[in-house]
Amino acid sequence: MLLTELERFIEEDMGNNDVSCEIIPDCSVRGVVVSNEEGIVAGLPEATQVFEYFEAFASTDLTDGSAVKKDDVIFTLEGGARSILRAERLALNFLGKMSGIATLTRRYVDRADGARIACTRKTTPGFRKFEKKAVIAAGGDPHRFNLSDSVMIKDNHIAVMGLEKTVKNAQQSKSFTQKIEVEVEDAESAVRAAGMGVDIIMFDNMSVDEIKNSIKILNEKNLRKNVILEASGGISLQDVGDYSKTGIDVISIGALTHSSNWLDVSLKLSM
Amino acid sequence: MLLTELERFIEEDMGNNDVSCEIIPDCSVRGVVVSNEEGIVAGLPEATQVFEYFEAFASTDLTDGSAVKKDDVIFTLEGGARSILRAERLALNFLGKMSGIATLTRRYVDRADGARIACTRKTTPGFRKFEKKAVIAAGGDPHRFNLSDSVMIKDNHIAVMGLEKTVKNAQQSKSFTQKIEVEVEDAESAVRAAGMGVDIIMFDNMSVDEIKNSIKILNEKNLRKNVILEASGGISLQDVGDYSKTGIDVISIGALTHSSNWLDVSLKLSM
Amino acid sequence: MLLTELERFIEEDMGNNDVSCEIIPDCSVRGVVVSNEEGIVAGLPEATQVFEYFEAFASTDLTDGSAVKKDDVIFTLEGGARSILRAERLALNFLGKMSGIATLTRRYVDRADGARIACTRKTTPGFRKFEKKAVIAAGGDPHRFNLSDSVMIKDNHIAVMGLEKTVKNAQQSKSFTQKIEVEVEDAESAVRAAGMGVDIIMFDNMSVDEIKNSIKILNEKNLRKNVILEASGGISLQDVGDYSKTGIDVISIGALTHSSNWLDVSLKLSM
Amino acid sequence: MLLTELERFIEEDMGNNDVSCEIIPDCSVRGVVVSNEEGIVAGLPEATQVFEYFEAFASTDLTDGSAVKKDDVIFTLEGGARSILRAERLALNFLGKMSGIATLTRRYVDRADGARIACTRKTTPGFRKFEKKAVIAAGGDPHRFNLSDSVMIKDNHIAVMGLEKTVKNAQQSKSFTQKIEVEVEDAESAVRAAGMGVDIIMFDNMSVDEIKNSIKILNEKNLRKNVILEASGGISLQDVGDYSKTGIDVISIGALTHSSNWLDVSLKLSM
Amino acid sequence: MLLTELERFIEEDMGNNDVSCEIIPDCSVRGVVVSNEEGIVAGLPEATQVFEYFEAFASTDLTDGSAVKKDDVIFTLEGGARSILRAERLALNFLGKMSGIATLTRRYVDRADGARIACTRKTTPGFRKFEKKAVIAAGGDPHRFNLSDSVMIKDNHIAVMGLEKTVKNAQQSKSFTQKIEVEVEDAESAVRAAGMGVDIIMFDNMSVDEIKNSIKILNEKNLRKNVILEASGGISLQDVGDYSKTGIDVISIGALTHSSNWLDVSLKLSM
Amino acid sequence: MLLTELERFIEEDMGNNDVSCEIIPDCSVRGVVVSNEEGIVAGLPEATQVFEYFEAFASTDLTDGSAVKKDDVIFTLEGGARSILRAERLALNFLGKMSGIATLTRRYVDRADGARIACTRKTTPGFRKFEKKAVIAAGGDPHRFNLSDSVMIKDNHIAVMGLEKTVKNAQQSKSFTQKIEVEVEDAESAVRAAGMGVDIIMFDNMSVDEIKNSIKILNEKNLRKNVILEASGGISLQDVGDYSKTGIDVISIGALTHSSNWLDVSLKLSM
Repeated sequence: MLLTELERFIEEDMGNNDVSCEIIPDCSVRGVVVSNEEGIVAGLPEATQVFEYFEAFASTDLTDGSAVKKDDVIFTLEGGARSILRAERLALNFLGKMSGIATLTRRYVDRADGARIACTRKTTPGFRKFEKKAVIAAGGDPHRFNLSDSVMIKDNHIAVMGLEKTVKNAQQSKSFTQKIEVEVEDAESAVRAAGMGVDIIMFDNMSVDEIKNSIKILNEKNLRKNVILEASGGISLQDVGDYSKTGIDVISIGALTHSSNWLDVSLKLSM
Repeated sequence: MLLTELERFIEEDMGNNDVSCEIIPDCSVRGVVVSNEEGIVAGLPEATQVFEYFEAFASTDLTDGSAVKKDDVIFTLEGGARSILRAERLALNFLGKMSGIATLTRRYVDRADGARIACTRKTTPGFRKFEKKAVIAAGGDPHRFNLSDSVMIKDNHIAVMGLEKTVKNAQQSKSFTQKIEVEVEDAESAVRAAGMGVDIIMFDNMSVDEIKNSIKILNEKNLRKNVILEASGGISLQDVGDYSKTGIDVISIGALTHSSNWLDVSLKLSM
Repeated sequence: MLLTELERFIEEDMGNNDVSCEIIPDCSVRGVVVSNEEGIVAGLPEATQVFEYFEAFASTDLTDGSAVKKDDVIFTLEGGARSILRAERLALNFLGKMSGIATLTRRYVDRADGARIACTRKTTPGFRKFEKKAVIAAGGDPHRFNLSDSVMIKDNHIAVMGLEKTVKNAQQSKSFTQKIEVEVEDAESAVRAAGMGVDIIMFDNMSVDEIKNSIKILNEKNLRKNVILEASGGISLQDVGDYSKTGIDVISIGALTHSSNWLDVSLKLSM
Repeated sequence: MLLTELERFIEEDMGNNDVSCEIIPDCSVRGVVVSNEEGIVAGLPEATQVFEYFEAFASTDLTDGSAVKKDDVIFTLEGGARSILRAERLALNFLGKMSGIATLTRRYVDRADGARIACTRKTTPGFRKFEKKAVIAAGGDPHRFNLSDSVMIKDNHIAVMGLEKTVKNAQQSKSFTQKIEVEVEDAESAVRAAGMGVDIIMFDNMSVDEIKNSIKILNEKNLRKNVILEASGGISLQDVGDYSKTGIDVISIGALTHSSNWLDVSLKLSM
Repeated sequence: MLLTELERFIEEDMGNNDVSCEIIPDCSVRGVVVSNEEGIVAGLPEATQVFEYFEAFASTDLTDGSAVKKDDVIFTLEGGARSILRAERLALNFLGKMSGIATLTRRYVDRADGARIACTRKTTPGFRKFEKKAVIAAGGDPHRFNLSDSVMIKDNHIAVMGLEKTVKNAQQSKSFTQKIEVEVEDAESAVRAAGMGVDIIMFDNMSVDEIKNSIKILNEKNLRKNVILEASGGISLQDVGDYSKTGIDVISIGALTHSSNWLDVSLKLSM
Repeated sequence: MLLTELERFIEEDMGNNDVSCEIIPDCSVRGVVVSNEEGIVAGLPEATQVFEYFEAFASTDLTDGSAVKKDDVIFTLEGGARSILRAERLALNFLGKMSGIATLTRRYVDRADGARIACTRKTTPGFRKFEKKAVIAAGGDPHRFNLSDSVMIKDNHIAVMGLEKTVKNAQQSKSFTQKIEVEVEDAESAVRAAGMGVDIIMFDNMSVDEIKNSIKILNEKNLRKNVILEASGGISLQDVGDYSKTGIDVISIGALTHSSNWLDVSLKLSM
């Protein structure tokens, strides 16, 4: 991460006068960061950078996306006691939060062999870049990062101006480097969107059967081939297998970022 | 929130060339933000500020900490279609994330009548201020914001220099405006810490019975009165009632910020 | 533009102690911004925002992309003399620079009826967003904004790992929302890239005849239809018509941003 | 440049998820940056700093202001393939833009042996420091950097309050470390300004003959000696020799920054 | 200090084009920073960091809080002449300002053996962290850093809502990690505040006798033991001894930061 | 001041969770800011901007540079109690600090009728702009703001390369818009510097008699007329009159910024 970003995060956790770390001698210590549960790690480069900022040294054999079991060592640490204690919380916050996202993502990925698992823009303000990075590390797809990345036409756009006119405007306004995605709620709209040559169609809050049927119709009308199909809307770990069997290309899951619990990791010093 | 902060968040979600919002006419529209489930709202001022930045108008009868039921209207909106669509995701991200924290916090608060429910520093880098604000809104306690707020002596500090010496150093180094908190893992350490006059003792990963017993001993030694007692370490919604009955003052719960799912909210436009 | 951005620009032009503007009384004045030559204007919202920051009022009947002739009034101004003189240089710098880009872009667009004219990443560090905005205003295409916007495989990438392997890696690594573009220097590479299903092929530094021939071959192999073709590399105003007649989709022109002279605009006060 | 500045520029060109550079192995490569045309280089320290940020190594025998011929090597590069490709565009943008300014500046300087060639405040917002640095590197004069650097009394100031009163106010308000410059459009105003003891007089949009005549009059009135004389206003490469022979001290040229094309430079990897 | 902070300070002192330092050769030089008067030094780490930023090397045997006499060497310097001259003013500004605060603080501390000397929030905007650090270095107490650090109930709060209600609100609103301080102007209010269990009572603008009497009353009512007592309000070096003998715990002195003259330090080069 | 600057200062004083201001009702109140001693006010626009940020309203009949007596009202305030209490400390810090500088500056100005009183670069890091503004408000001269403003040749420069060579380099390197100032320690160096045509000569740490004598010699050699003469080096309020009578143009006083006590101002609410 940029040094200017890192220092903003450090400032948040340090405050103005960190007495807690100064009351102990800055003796040389060793330590480990261990995982207290099974999961997929992410945020290793970020955590490493935090330790290095404070001149502590963190080494690991893992890379983002590696699986860990309970009690596995993620990092071995070496450095001054003050350095490690100053870095501890911020490093673990990156690691815990990003690994939590990676862990949930991998669970979805594992159950959706055919389809690509993507996250959404439902991310913590200011932390999206890291959240999407965790999704990627676990084999997921970041989807677009922001409003400018591709053109997404959603229900509220269509409510304002109708599907055809909105798509036509988008085709005229967008860069040739961008894709157009249209959100639909039924097969008929999917056919209209595909007929206009959009790149991606997102089936929003549709059942497995509705999606199956929509894909069948698109195939019949010879509109399936050049369009990427995405399913979205409250799809759970239980459902994801069924959705993936519909022939969908992508399944996007808000929960990857809005409802993933952190991986439980902790730091132990040894003198 | 500061305008400089807000613009940093807006930049993250807008990118360089927001075609999606420009392909529709900027006609005047109305809309609502509704809750799709029961919970406690937080982030109302932040969401309002996001809408106002884009010159849309959001009004609400609720305040942070208010309870909502499924389908309750949180905001009624008025403004240009482009304005509202530009603000939508960021406003909802504040609202969903902060309300999720508030909702979980309130559940703990409701089951812990005697004790105060506090969060920790296990927060998303860069977003701590808003996460703690959500905890407060729901009746929880923010605990310290950063390393400088009060002096917390943890297992790793004690491992480096021993309890007595660390406490003594802290008492000499800290400001008279700060409190000292010591983390202990058994009654005997609690007695030693209380005997030295620390302000707060945190029972780390101790059972309900161990804590009961520790408090009994502190009482017997007349050390209970001037110290605040805090329990911490994986305390669940199931356990929190039992912990609160031990006579503990504060129960701190990392899960408030690291394992709370967002409240499900959505925005609907009406023309 | 964001207020934080605007203030950074203002600080650059104001310095610490602007005596020049304080030596005159802050009397109410009127003024105009006029164009001293024919061209296409851009940067009107930016210039307006600069004047407003200093509480001067700038009104215009034009929008970005409008054509002006010599002596045409772009803005009429009203406000305190100090306000207008403080805003003058920064407002005109936005207007002159962005209009210069728009003017050159429009010239290319006018001679390339069939093909889309795009700019590149050859932009002034820190000012890309505004340069690309000027291109768009004049009917051009912004191409990608940064390295993350789409995947561009250039000669230097291919030199490292070969075309097929690089494209395969890109297809596995990229988001489904991103396109892949491959830069080629001959028809044979174009066929290989198109055969792998890339979204965009860029003919780099190839002659009109080479491009014509490449397109012919792509057509024969039935690979033309699903790929966007882009020509690039020192294409001048003289050549652009010929290139556009090859059947190319996009012509990208570094000169739009790296070799466009500013539009000559000036501000006249009237008391 | 400051690291905080550099990271702002890097962020602009990298975006959130640079797939393009990650799809190739980070093998060690060599390369060169060459000039595709004759010119004067500038921006070498800035380009070097960009490469170093990404841990690539750029070495050069040139310094800012050195002349290069077509095909001359500017930098030899060594480093990881990813590092060099990440740095490439930003490094070349500094180099191309600043060298373009230096090249045009040197052309003016070469034709104006007697007079000093200066640039103006007509610079790209946010990039002035680097543009003026390129002018200096080529032997030009940066003129003032911002409104606070010296006191410039222009036509619009005089329109508000008249020459004498404005100059008097400036003399009272300014620091003794600052100079006063007055813009005039005829000999008579020049005499009045020089008579008041201003430091610099700028002849705005006056012909070679008008300037010759003005200087003659100033000499006759014994007002020439303690004043610096500057000519400004659309002076071209063709005219600059004639202007410099009038006895003028400084010729300021907006075109150095607003109408200089970039020097054409490119980067070639060798494995 | 954070690098981002340091660069902001460097930018302030360097400006855009530092000719002064470039007109001398960057030859290797040595130098010293000496104190021209007796005092307590502070700001050594900050000054060292400034020199290092410019790649000059500053070594010292002192630490913040060390006493120096007239002509004592604080730093010995080694590096390029340009580097040292660029760093000089900013390094000395940190050193002079912070040492001035430390020197005055130590004088108060020396005369107040019993009581703790604290500073206030009367600090230079943007420089508080360094001012409080200087106070701490000299043996003083930083008091709270900002409005959020602890809850201070002042005359203006009480004027709005009365003492009891304000304290009660504070007790309900504040975190258990925060202390409550109440400002009083007479013994009677002190008794009321102590009776409510506040942590700190500040005697504002009260005489030595009034404070003595208040403490006597608090003792009689058995309210002294669990409260920290602070005296504040224009207490001078002459008075501080008398105040400290009242039995007060803390004496806060705005003058430490608002009326301390800099320590006179200067830098001498030797070739 | 820029909003981005203001918010940085506000963040410093507010922290993360300002309980103190929230425990009182936000009722509408009135108040005054009064001066507790005689002096010259400065910082009125800055203090006003702070109050306005919090939506409190501050009105005043004074302007920066106005004299106040003990108990004079500086501002009358109106607004919510919370708003005013939030703004209080930062507003008063601007006012107290800047007025302190203005007050000391005016004392020097009053005793130095002939000569101009200037400050130096001995300023608090990050606050220079405001400190120099206070000097200007009181009738003083800001001297140069930073290393780039004019070329100052000091003892350490001369130690490296000698006076003549340094001056010559400066004359070749600097912009025609900049002045050259040379620091000398005796009449002989002053003559050499004036003979080379420098703009300003600063007599560093020279006595009244030495300066008188130097000026006499400069006059004899006809070198006085085109050079500005400045005295510097520990000149006190007692000495300044004598120095001003030597015929010096400028007297620079580090103490204006490094040893001025704040003006004592306070805020009183009335309900």
